[in-house]
Amino acid sequence: MAVLDTMPAVVRRAGTGAMTDRVREILSWYESDSPGTKTNIARLLAHGYLAGTGKLVILPVDQGFEHGPARSFAVNPPGYDPNYHFEMAIEAGCNAYAAPLGFLEAAAARHAGEVPLILKLNNHDLLYDEKDPISAVTGSVRDALRLGCVAIGFTIYPGSAGARTMYEQLRALAEEAKSHGLAVVVWSYARGSQLSKEGETAIDVVAYAAHIAAQLGAHVIKVKLPTAHIEQAEAQKAYTKAAVPINTLAERVRHVVQSTFNGRRIVIFSGGALKADDEAVYDEARAIRDGGGFGSIIGRNSFQRPRERALGFLSTIMKIYAGETT
Amino acid sequence: MAVLDTMPAVVRRAGTGAMTDRVREILSWYESDSPGTKTNIARLLAHGYLAGTGKLVILPVDQGFEHGPARSFAVNPPGYDPNYHFEMAIEAGCNAYAAPLGFLEAAAARHAGEVPLILKLNNHDLLYDEKDPISAVTGSVRDALRLGCVAIGFTIYPGSAGARTMYEQLRALAEEAKSHGLAVVVWSYARGSQLSKEGETAIDVVAYAAHIAAQLGAHVIKVKLPTAHIEQAEAQKAYTKAAVPINTLAERVRHVVQSTFNGRRIVIFSGGALKADDEAVYDEARAIRDGGGFGSIIGRNSFQRPRERALGFLSTIMKIYAGETT
Amino acid sequence: MAVLDTMPAVVRRAGTGAMTDRVREILSWYESDSPGTKTNIARLLAHGYLAGTGKLVILPVDQGFEHGPARSFAVNPPGYDPNYHFEMAIEAGCNAYAAPLGFLEAAAARHAGEVPLILKLNNHDLLYDEKDPISAVTGSVRDALRLGCVAIGFTIYPGSAGARTMYEQLRALAEEAKSHGLAVVVWSYARGSQLSKEGETAIDVVAYAAHIAAQLGAHVIKVKLPTAHIEQAEAQKAYTKAAVPINTLAERVRHVVQSTFNGRRIVIFSGGALKADDEAVYDEARAIRDGGGFGSIIGRNSFQRPRERALGFLSTIMKIYAGETT
Amino acid sequence: MAVLDTMPAVVRRAGTGAMTDRVREILSWYESDSPGTKTNIARLLAHGYLAGTGKLVILPVDQGFEHGPARSFAVNPPGYDPNYHFEMAIEAGCNAYAAPLGFLEAAAARHAGEVPLILKLNNHDLLYDEKDPISAVTGSVRDALRLGCVAIGFTIYPGSAGARTMYEQLRALAEEAKSHGLAVVVWSYARGSQLSKEGETAIDVVAYAAHIAAQLGAHVIKVKLPTAHIEQAEAQKAYTKAAVPINTLAERVRHVVQSTFNGRRIVIFSGGALKADDEAVYDEARAIRDGGGFGSIIGRNSFQRPRERALGFLSTIMKIYAGETT
Amino acid sequence: MAVLDTMPAVVRRAGTGAMTDRVREILSWYESDSPGTKTNIARLLAHGYLAGTGKLVILPVDQGFEHGPARSFAVNPPGYDPNYHFEMAIEAGCNAYAAPLGFLEAAAARHAGEVPLILKLNNHDLLYDEKDPISAVTGSVRDALRLGCVAIGFTIYPGSAGARTMYEQLRALAEEAKSHGLAVVVWSYARGSQLSKEGETAIDVVAYAAHIAAQLGAHVIKVKLPTAHIEQAEAQKAYTKAAVPINTLAERVRHVVQSTFNGRRIVIFSGGALKADDEAVYDEARAIRDGGGFGSIIGRNSFQRPRERALGFLSTIMKIYAGETT
Repeated sequence: MAVLDTMPAVVRRAGTGAMTDRVREILSWYESDSPGTKTNIARLLAHGYLAGTGKLVILPVDQGFEHGPARSFAVNPPGYDPNYHFEMAIEAGCNAYAAPLGFLEAAAARHAGEVPLILKLNNHDLLYDEKDPISAVTGSVRDALRLGCVAIGFTIYPGSAGARTMYEQLRALAEEAKSHGLAVVVWSYARGSQLSKEGETAIDVVAYAAHIAAQLGAHVIKVKLPTAHIEQAEAQKAYTKAAVPINTLAERVRHVVQSTFNGRRIVIFSGGALKADDEAVYDEARAIRDGGGFGSIIGRNSFQRPRERALGFLSTIMKIYAGETT
Repeated sequence: MAVLDTMPAVVRRAGTGAMTDRVREILSWYESDSPGTKTNIARLLAHGYLAGTGKLVILPVDQGFEHGPARSFAVNPPGYDPNYHFEMAIEAGCNAYAAPLGFLEAAAARHAGEVPLILKLNNHDLLYDEKDPISAVTGSVRDALRLGCVAIGFTIYPGSAGARTMYEQLRALAEEAKSHGLAVVVWSYARGSQLSKEGETAIDVVAYAAHIAAQLGAHVIKVKLPTAHIEQAEAQKAYTKAAVPINTLAERVRHVVQSTFNGRRIVIFSGGALKADDEAVYDEARAIRDGGGFGSIIGRNSFQRPRERALGFLSTIMKIYAGETT
Repeated sequence: MAVLDTMPAVVRRAGTGAMTDRVREILSWYESDSPGTKTNIARLLAHGYLAGTGKLVILPVDQGFEHGPARSFAVNPPGYDPNYHFEMAIEAGCNAYAAPLGFLEAAAARHAGEVPLILKLNNHDLLYDEKDPISAVTGSVRDALRLGCVAIGFTIYPGSAGARTMYEQLRALAEEAKSHGLAVVVWSYARGSQLSKEGETAIDVVAYAAHIAAQLGAHVIKVKLPTAHIEQAEAQKAYTKAAVPINTLAERVRHVVQSTFNGRRIVIFSGGALKADDEAVYDEARAIRDGGGFGSIIGRNSFQRPRERALGFLSTIMKIYAGETT
Repeated sequence: MAVLDTMPAVVRRAGTGAMTDRVREILSWYESDSPGTKTNIARLLAHGYLAGTGKLVILPVDQGFEHGPARSFAVNPPGYDPNYHFEMAIEAGCNAYAAPLGFLEAAAARHAGEVPLILKLNNHDLLYDEKDPISAVTGSVRDALRLGCVAIGFTIYPGSAGARTMYEQLRALAEEAKSHGLAVVVWSYARGSQLSKEGETAIDVVAYAAHIAAQLGAHVIKVKLPTAHIEQAEAQKAYTKAAVPINTLAERVRHVVQSTFNGRRIVIFSGGALKADDEAVYDEARAIRDGGGFGSIIGRNSFQRPRERALGFLSTIMKIYAGETT
Repeated sequence: MAVLDTMPAVVRRAGTGAMTDRVREILSWYESDSPGTKTNIARLLAHGYLAGTGKLVILPVDQGFEHGPARSFAVNPPGYDPNYHFEMAIEAGCNAYAAPLGFLEAAAARHAGEVPLILKLNNHDLLYDEKDPISAVTGSVRDALRLGCVAIGFTIYPGSAGARTMYEQLRALAEEAKSHGLAVVVWSYARGSQLSKEGETAIDVVAYAAHIAAQLGAHVIKVKLPTAHIEQAEAQKAYTKAAVPINTLAERVRHVVQSTFNGRRIVIFSGGALKADDEAVYDEARAIRDGGGFGSIIGRNSFQRPRERALGFLSTIMKIYAGETT
């Protein structure tokens, strides 16, 4: 028993014991899905430190593809190694690890069964940078099954002139994934020639992007944290008339959650670039929690720090979501 | 038992009683279609308050995708919940409920068998707004079958430089839908860089758009209510020469109905934005009825009001179509 | 107008009124199925005289194929006409009409939307009569969709040396049907060289045949009414040891219902050959009802009588199931 | 911490904490398999009371199909309900639950994520009993994915004149399963016209059957417990000449384990019919453990007892495998 | 060294004796790949003069397609003959020979089994020269199998507006190749309208291009030798901040190797245009070796010299990689 007492929470909470009433409630929202897809959503919710709480912290490492390797990993060189991120996700007790094909192929066999995996099926690089970007499809549903993933991940850029292409790719891949019992995680980032830079994180735009992802059939939706800015004139009228509360970050999170089927879809928020001030990130997590958000997807703030600091940092965030700290 | 005892047989044998001579007459127009497609058209016509009358009121909720969630639902927040619209369509006695993939997936199992469903297979958002728009294909015929739908819905924008793309997508999807016994509902909205804003609802343009949808094989066609404006110079000559009556709304409805195979296709009209004056909407319904139109598709005027008011409003419109009120 | 004015809303909104709590409870047993399949099971349960009661009376007319036309229809010659049976099913208020490809093709368009249809996908004739029979596959899932059916029907002969062939055909057709949103109705009739004639309706054999159909994924199972005979020596021990009550027909029905997932699958019973004594059939219906069975599939006793007598006969049976008569 | 102390082992051991060195060692034997298949083998080994020990106890319930419902469930009637077995497997902390299509479809959605599932893809019934049996294929790899299974299960009857058919079906299904990241569990039961009844469990025959399953690419192999009888004359010579120790059950288990790639495949043993004497079963488990076997698949001895007794019985067996009792 | 010196060349260069610990270590990095793909990577590493060293020199001859025949072969006319290059690769002891479809078809049968082959599946010519080039797919996985190749080769141009097209083609071809047990060699050359000419070989760009190829699932990656120039402003910050050493060529090679999964992917470097000064090429090989690179792919510097000089030149380079000369 002594051993158990000193075991970290990740050991104690994992697995069957994590199929709580809250997890069952969340699964009940996906009523059109097969038992297979429900099982894989359950695996996301029943793993790691937050197992059973209905909250998620996911580690995504697609920065190498998106921003280049030096910008991503030079600050913390162990991150060049694909095993580093698997081990970070496992040891920190994240709910899942998400990465492109190469990173998963490089280390999935060694870590089989140790953390739920999400294969990012499309990716974008900055060597050619368009105003209206389209990500390239870089993996398949068959790859996701072969690698033992619980879900496919796919990025859409609502606002891009190429959005239609991405929506249609997602439609086909999501249908195939669902028919094979996988879950679908959608990164929905507004971007495009008709949006201002500020508009990409405007509350109306983020809520709209989240809603589009939900309508496209996503089970889990990832968006950026919204500001109080409103980008679209027509939307401004609606917000003003209905007096939608959007002053605090928690209020804005609540509005985004409402915009994804009145809270009946899992919405998580991205952490953004590496921040100097940890407290600022913790405050964001608190706002997500208080606004009814389902958690965070934290990439750069994890793998751009030294390992020990990253583990402590992720632990604090998980404790905030678990309600074990204020 | 008492209630059952006094119920006419038609109640106990629910459904069948609505297969009136008028419904059979309408079905006879679709003589090249399979019994399966006829069965699904019959289901549309035999359900709800207007069952058996040959008239339809359909509840469409794709506004969240088209205009964003806040512009659609902030005025009546229960509308953020997918169940709200299913229940509205069921309780109001609409002939059908039409929505994109996400909204149907979110609540179709719970409400299985309670209202005919139409899966909107393409959708458009305003985060990137083109002069010559193309909707993205966001669902499949297989999705429609999996969700228990009676029909697929598809939007075309005649007048757009992208119209050819949409016509060709519709052709392929309609062929697949028909071969699986589904019906095809087409939203035909003229839009594009060569049309004036006024032209989008001009009588010549609306009649033309309706005719194109019919020629593309639609079973049910939805267009906007036309104004007396004539957009195309060549068309103007024809209207003048033949003295086509288009002064009243009822006359214009009659001309649109005539333009869809001389009334041998079901044409319904959209309600447009939320209106302050209910009587204006009722007058439109009367004009549709008097002009030989088949009914309305009413979205924003339904779900942007409080529930009780929406039910009363829809009831009045149905009574107008049923001839139970003037 | 007068009739309409006094009609309760449930009449005007036909169909919906039949979605009772009992129907919803039955649908909840099919938790792995798509909303589409649930919708088609709901259509079976929400149509006809027994709509909403959770009970079913289905009219099957595959006797012409199975026994030859004269043996089937000479006694009541209007039965040679495919329309006759459609109209019988509609007018009597049956929940569904089941027939082979030809009979459905011959009249499905004329009666589109008037009664749920089940396409019998395999059939057997007696021009070659094996001890270990295998039915021929005579229709496809695509046919069922094209004809507007709610379900496919398929016969298996457990006990036949050819059972494996039929199980494997059913497996493939059921998977295809379910993926297209259809329901699966299985006729499970024990037959084969190792069974005595008496054994075909022995309680152990009928319960076993029903269980096999359920394990093969049937949504609705049709078996013969069982006798108290026990065919298999090994089974005899189990019945004796557990003192399974099988003396009365109601007890035996109850045991068959229990054998199909403890009552969580719809089991209906066949009426068998034309009987001289109507009361005997009514007693069987009472036993089915009292034993928790879900209804009857009545072919020869319907179409081998004159039309008016058949309607009266079916009406009495439905009233027994509806609890409107003892 | 008090809570943890009183938590049943199943809570503490499940999940990530269960990825022990022993599990990693076992996974290393499957070096040609994809990370997906390794992940699903890991899920089997990392779930339930025995999570992480490298031992397995699996609950199989295909008796209803194999022997008929009364022979299977009359002795403990709650077993007629598919939910009963799911709940038994979950509560007892079994590594997995294996059943035919119908039983899994009936309850997989409700229990999504709570226990690893194995879909038995072929089944055999006794209404037609051949000397050289062939099981019918009653499910598909697509079904297994749709239902969230970790593995397919398949029975072969080495010794049957129909063995070639089953080997070839297994080959195709196993290839499809592996390419979709699933594991393959093979029931290998010698049976056929050239084997004596005693020969079906003869040590030479059981070892041979286990080896064939391994050669066909099985990841997990289930055989019957062997007797000291030797069926084949040629084999007798080999056993005698090499003085293979087969006197005790543990020795025979060791020989079977050796016969499946010198212990590099997971071999488990079936419990057989309900036994009067629990101690006899415990002794078998001890022999399996002492002979290096990987565990048991226990059907009838679980579900043919009252629930509480079954839980206690399974708990004792698991403790034997866990080395927590002698 | 003594042992090697006395071994006949055929021993060192051929076959089984070359399966050294270093080769096994490299194979272990490809843990998600099938034994078939591992076998083909092993064939690359176990052939030729460098067999067993973990280093590679590959002879590619796609210059005819890329630059035209005269620019490629007029300087050394025997190079017009496809057999010439096969024989060069074999006699020089290259690890592999890579060429487009036509060159391989022309001489693969005659030289079957004598040198590992790589079929270049896409090619680009200069008769139409875009700023944002896309190579044409000119071969198939089936072709590669038919010709006995160990790998497919594919070129991507990160930075091109057409990069997305090439990434998606590669994704599909690589999945097909891997499922057939082939290896995947990716030429990753940054090129495009947003890159300066200098930028194409900038250290940040080359490292980025190498990383993209790895993420796309390449087993072997070929890039250009990088200069110390940094093209992207954002990258400059990262390099400066982390003080990444990039002054010497060896340092830059080391950074590229690090950027491909921390050295867990085979990266080789192209020799570029024919150089007047052999020593310059040798210095490059020394830098590649000292920086941890895996070797060179040398086309023009081989086949644009007379045969004997080319053999001597290649021999010197191989000796550098083998550590047999400084």
